[in-house]
Amino acid sequence: MDEGPHVRQASGSFRWEGVELLAYKEESSAPFKAITRQILFQRPELGCELRYFEMQPGGYSTLERHEHAHAVMIFRGRGTCLVGGQLSEVTAPGLVFIPPMTWHQFRATANEPFGFLCMVNAERDKPQLPSKAELRELMKDPAVAAFLDA
Amino acid sequence: MDEGPHVRQASGSFRWEGVELLAYKEESSAPFKAITRQILFQRPELGCELRYFEMQPGGYSTLERHEHAHAVMIFRGRGTCLVGGQLSEVTAPGLVFIPPMTWHQFRATANEPFGFLCMVNAERDKPQLPSKAELRELMKDPAVAAFLDA
Repeated sequence: MDEGPHVRQASGSFRWEGVELLAYKEESSAPFKAITRQILFQRPELGCELRYFEMQPGGYSTLERHEHAHAVMIFRGRGTCLVGGQLSEVTAPGLVFIPPMTWHQFRATANEPFGFLCMVNAERDKPQLPSKAELRELMKDPAVAAFLDA
Repeated sequence: MDEGPHVRQASGSFRWEGVELLAYKEESSAPFKAITRQILFQRPELGCELRYFEMQPGGYSTLERHEHAHAVMIFRGRGTCLVGGQLSEVTAPGLVFIPPMTWHQFRATANEPFGFLCMVNAERDKPQLPSKAELRELMKDPAVAAFLDA
């Protein structure tokens, strides 16, 4: 019987014992703003990972797509997500499914932090950034253009 | 580009749009009490699933073990978990990792509902219940015996 320390209590405002506060991704590898990453579960026994991303007011994740899917639960505050060509206002504890090869981005509102849990396969492909042509295509919708320009 | 309805808003107190409130497991298949299950994400693209389990005050999950691991985030209230021989008080949003083949059980307190998210592989083995000898072994620890008898 394994009697190790299986429990990580929350240690304050959206932080967990023994969980490091990480950069969202490598600086200047892609566009993003004011967003951090905590890896809540990453164990070989699981096959998948659970991460917590949090943005400061006005922050946003990278607009990207990839072959792997995301299962997202909004965990703190409210924000807007783009999934494919569709914009949605989302609030905790709402759920967002991001299908394979679908452009997506999350943005915080201007006045409060915005956090979400993201479940993902441990083995996954690298995100792709949109080409100028793909970005132009997305921005044909004025609402999406306004969201991406914000 | 997929433009389907990717978002499921929360529709009240720990319920989600389009997510069915299910029995925890088949009646009389195993011991448990006052616990429900909602499947938040179960998609072939993901390889893993995210479920939300909720117990009424005094409720408990089955004492069981299996080859697959669980990644748990306490989501509502507080309760006690047994993982291996170790008892822990857990409160939202604490994290619990349940390694393979490790006896585990969650119990709500007497005075409030207790809910947790559980991430698990889509392909997994069936839970095993303890034999009388295994139960006796677990109950050699008086604290564990009191927990299991509660």
